[in-house]
Amino acid sequence: METKARVLIDCNDAKGLVYKISKVFFEKDLNIDSNREFVDKDSGRFFMRSVVTGRFEPQELLAELKATVPEDADIKVIVPKPKKIILMATKESHALGDILIRHADGELDAQIECVIANHDTLETLVRRFDIPFFCIPADGMNREEHEAKVMELIDTFEFDFIVLAKYMRILTPKFVTAYPRKIINIHHSFLPAFIGANPYKQAHDRGVKIIGATAHYVTDDLDEGPIIAQDVIPVNHRMEWRDMQRAGRDVEKVVLSRALSYVLNDRVFVHGNKTIVF
Amino acid sequence: METKARVLIDCNDAKGLVYKISKVFFEKDLNIDSNREFVDKDSGRFFMRSVVTGRFEPQELLAELKATVPEDADIKVIVPKPKKIILMATKESHALGDILIRHADGELDAQIECVIANHDTLETLVRRFDIPFFCIPADGMNREEHEAKVMELIDTFEFDFIVLAKYMRILTPKFVTAYPRKIINIHHSFLPAFIGANPYKQAHDRGVKIIGATAHYVTDDLDEGPIIAQDVIPVNHRMEWRDMQRAGRDVEKVVLSRALSYVLNDRVFVHGNKTIVF
Amino acid sequence: METKARVLIDCNDAKGLVYKISKVFFEKDLNIDSNREFVDKDSGRFFMRSVVTGRFEPQELLAELKATVPEDADIKVIVPKPKKIILMATKESHALGDILIRHADGELDAQIECVIANHDTLETLVRRFDIPFFCIPADGMNREEHEAKVMELIDTFEFDFIVLAKYMRILTPKFVTAYPRKIINIHHSFLPAFIGANPYKQAHDRGVKIIGATAHYVTDDLDEGPIIAQDVIPVNHRMEWRDMQRAGRDVEKVVLSRALSYVLNDRVFVHGNKTIVF
Amino acid sequence: METKARVLIDCNDAKGLVYKISKVFFEKDLNIDSNREFVDKDSGRFFMRSVVTGRFEPQELLAELKATVPEDADIKVIVPKPKKIILMATKESHALGDILIRHADGELDAQIECVIANHDTLETLVRRFDIPFFCIPADGMNREEHEAKVMELIDTFEFDFIVLAKYMRILTPKFVTAYPRKIINIHHSFLPAFIGANPYKQAHDRGVKIIGATAHYVTDDLDEGPIIAQDVIPVNHRMEWRDMQRAGRDVEKVVLSRALSYVLNDRVFVHGNKTIVF
Repeated sequence: METKARVLIDCNDAKGLVYKISKVFFEKDLNIDSNREFVDKDSGRFFMRSVVTGRFEPQELLAELKATVPEDADIKVIVPKPKKIILMATKESHALGDILIRHADGELDAQIECVIANHDTLETLVRRFDIPFFCIPADGMNREEHEAKVMELIDTFEFDFIVLAKYMRILTPKFVTAYPRKIINIHHSFLPAFIGANPYKQAHDRGVKIIGATAHYVTDDLDEGPIIAQDVIPVNHRMEWRDMQRAGRDVEKVVLSRALSYVLNDRVFVHGNKTIVF
Repeated sequence: METKARVLIDCNDAKGLVYKISKVFFEKDLNIDSNREFVDKDSGRFFMRSVVTGRFEPQELLAELKATVPEDADIKVIVPKPKKIILMATKESHALGDILIRHADGELDAQIECVIANHDTLETLVRRFDIPFFCIPADGMNREEHEAKVMELIDTFEFDFIVLAKYMRILTPKFVTAYPRKIINIHHSFLPAFIGANPYKQAHDRGVKIIGATAHYVTDDLDEGPIIAQDVIPVNHRMEWRDMQRAGRDVEKVVLSRALSYVLNDRVFVHGNKTIVF
Repeated sequence: METKARVLIDCNDAKGLVYKISKVFFEKDLNIDSNREFVDKDSGRFFMRSVVTGRFEPQELLAELKATVPEDADIKVIVPKPKKIILMATKESHALGDILIRHADGELDAQIECVIANHDTLETLVRRFDIPFFCIPADGMNREEHEAKVMELIDTFEFDFIVLAKYMRILTPKFVTAYPRKIINIHHSFLPAFIGANPYKQAHDRGVKIIGATAHYVTDDLDEGPIIAQDVIPVNHRMEWRDMQRAGRDVEKVVLSRALSYVLNDRVFVHGNKTIVF
Repeated sequence: METKARVLIDCNDAKGLVYKISKVFFEKDLNIDSNREFVDKDSGRFFMRSVVTGRFEPQELLAELKATVPEDADIKVIVPKPKKIILMATKESHALGDILIRHADGELDAQIECVIANHDTLETLVRRFDIPFFCIPADGMNREEHEAKVMELIDTFEFDFIVLAKYMRILTPKFVTAYPRKIINIHHSFLPAFIGANPYKQAHDRGVKIIGATAHYVTDDLDEGPIIAQDVIPVNHRMEWRDMQRAGRDVEKVVLSRALSYVLNDRVFVHGNKTIVF
């Protein structure tokens, strides 16, 4: 029976890498469905994503590739299956709702394990989709205490990604470092811009003519993690900041879902503070 | 003979303003070619731009409008004629060249008085268009000395606007306050973002997926003046920062020319740190 | 108690219209919250949308306005309240789901009366939102018979708009003329373009670099009704037509919801085959 | 001394192509600066563009590659040097002027052989840049006679591309087939759309909310050649068709220059009626 796999290679650049890797594919008689490479000149780093099909053992393919490329290489051979995700939200429904609809439609190659929120506002919506909803209010707790309870819950699940679908609380370094390259956030602004509270009010006060949204990995450095996707929408002086917020939400939800689709399909490499999206 | 005028009114909002102003137009038997109003709710300020035609004396119309609207009103009755502009540049030709071509084609309702640059790189290009070119090098001078020479030259001209078409020197408050609401700049970035040197390098290092440009009035607060126009262009990981710069230049020149067209047509009101663009 | 109303005026242009209309507002001591006018020069038609607040009887205001402007005028004084809408769909969930989520969130100033579909695919989704779902399959019926059943159902409801959220059947002139200016459609293409079946396949075969979507009123002339909103998204050679379709769906749903928001807020005038969107 | 070359391969897809090609590069000890491949699944066609550097003879590399890949392959090994282009125009300066400015700035890797126009309107502009200008009026000639004179002139030059920078005459099949895949046009519309005269008037009459432009290779089938680049700009009801035309020109010139940059850098493959742009 045919197997399909996504091969991801991230290593120092060297002469002959494409040759050596494609030689492995060729000798195992694999079809290359798609193939993309990129070399970051500044750092001398090589990235490759191939989708291959054929009769092979993924573990064997991985072993052969490891024997071929430089030792420092980070290689993955991934047989596609739905990834498990945990959604976190607060009160706004647009980003969460968009993911729920796509999921219900089978558009996302993902299984939603649960939704965790710090308010119960979205419970009705989530339950409409028969997805477990957990509310962990932060009232009367400090940030660490609240997060400890959230992490305790998270750690009862197996998961690939945590998606912050407008989760409006700042995460501590402890939380962020516990799930490296696993947390995806939608930033309510076009980064780098208007960092801080109520960016739409800030954008309005500044009189900008365009607003945007940014989906990124969450790192310890607030709002400064590697950017996965961005988009914008024109605005004008007639819009009050709530109008800008409304327009911005359409961008937010589309950008977050686009970024989510990229990571679910293993199309994103993180390289320092940047991403390569194939 | 028929006269056409642009009427610009900027005053505190009050009940009946549209009625009172349109009454003046009606009683003078004017045609309203176009009419736009806007009230900034936060500040209670009223803005109106009307284009009227008919048999009238502009000074009389102005006087009647002044007698009609609140005393604080800033009213202009402008009979359209080409505005006089001074262009300032450094070494890059894309923004300057775009204005020269449009001007040569009669697209800009403007007369270019001269181009002033701190290098002679662009002299050949400017002379091709039979426009006076002045080079005032900054070598061996401090910022104040250089600017004094530039201002001395500028002050020999009558002009409506100074257009910074990639003039890569920072202006002192003295310069900026000498020409209030008369200096227009193209910022090589999507404001607010990447303030400082080499924004395309910064954008590249940050791994953004979109870059942009911002045309704005220059105020004392560097890169923080009222925004007139903005636009963006998608970029990706394959682009080195020079590629981003090249892509950014296309946005820069189009955005600057768009902003210039707005101000030449008296379509822009400045309100605090924002603009209303009708 | 204060009343708020949207005043919509659509009449032949004439000198003094703004004056006469704003005089009515002034003499009734109304506040003008916003005011926009437009004259279509080609046809000499005047359009105005004002939002006014004050102590007044809407019927009286309407009568006074009618006595003021030309006899041919189409004037509406609308006290905002949620409009009633009927959604029609087939099998695809993206456009319908987007409206359901926005509705559940209170973002749409509308009451969804029901969803009518010609397949039962979307029943589960619709029922999650506690909205009546009616399936009227077309099997074994000709177009006229099927539509007769649909119209019979529609006519049991009071409604302001029928929203075709990817209803994939062609409507007969009989249906369309029964609900003039009440049917809104999302066209799976950037009009005018690729009229007919499977536009994404056509776009792919043609190798376009951008695809789009168009929301429009439905008229007798298939896909040729007045355009309310449009948007686009870049595509490339690597995308197969199903990828283009997926990308296109994001545009479709955002454009349809944008158009819906315009009509729910009485911001759209239809003028011949065009719209004025204030 | 090091040589740099662009290797373009266009052949039927087969297992092991990437391996075999990269093996040639590896055995000749070449560095791969960049590498992109694409397989068109529908047609089973393979496309690859590599930029390689090293010590090699281009003709030898070509021969080795030919011996390696399927016989049907179209292979090019191109050592970059400025391509020679002929510009054709009529009366409008925006697209032509944009190319002249970029050329003067050294941004285009091209040598402009001459500008050919059917009116003398643009002569002054072209001469400003010291570029030969030929006016071949069409008065009193039929299409074939005029084209014969144009072709006679063209054939006195060596050139790589003919760029129609708003050349407003329809070309006969004879002309088009004489220069296959060598003619690039900017279409004053977002294809497929509004084919025929005055597309901006058509767009205005249709009330579209977005207009665009399309750069494409010219084939025998009018306006239906392979698309290289497209872009769009939002418009609204307040714009008369001349305003749309003005806005459209900004898109036209940027899109044409973008397409020109792609072909000058050998980044475009033509595949049937589509392009692959690496």
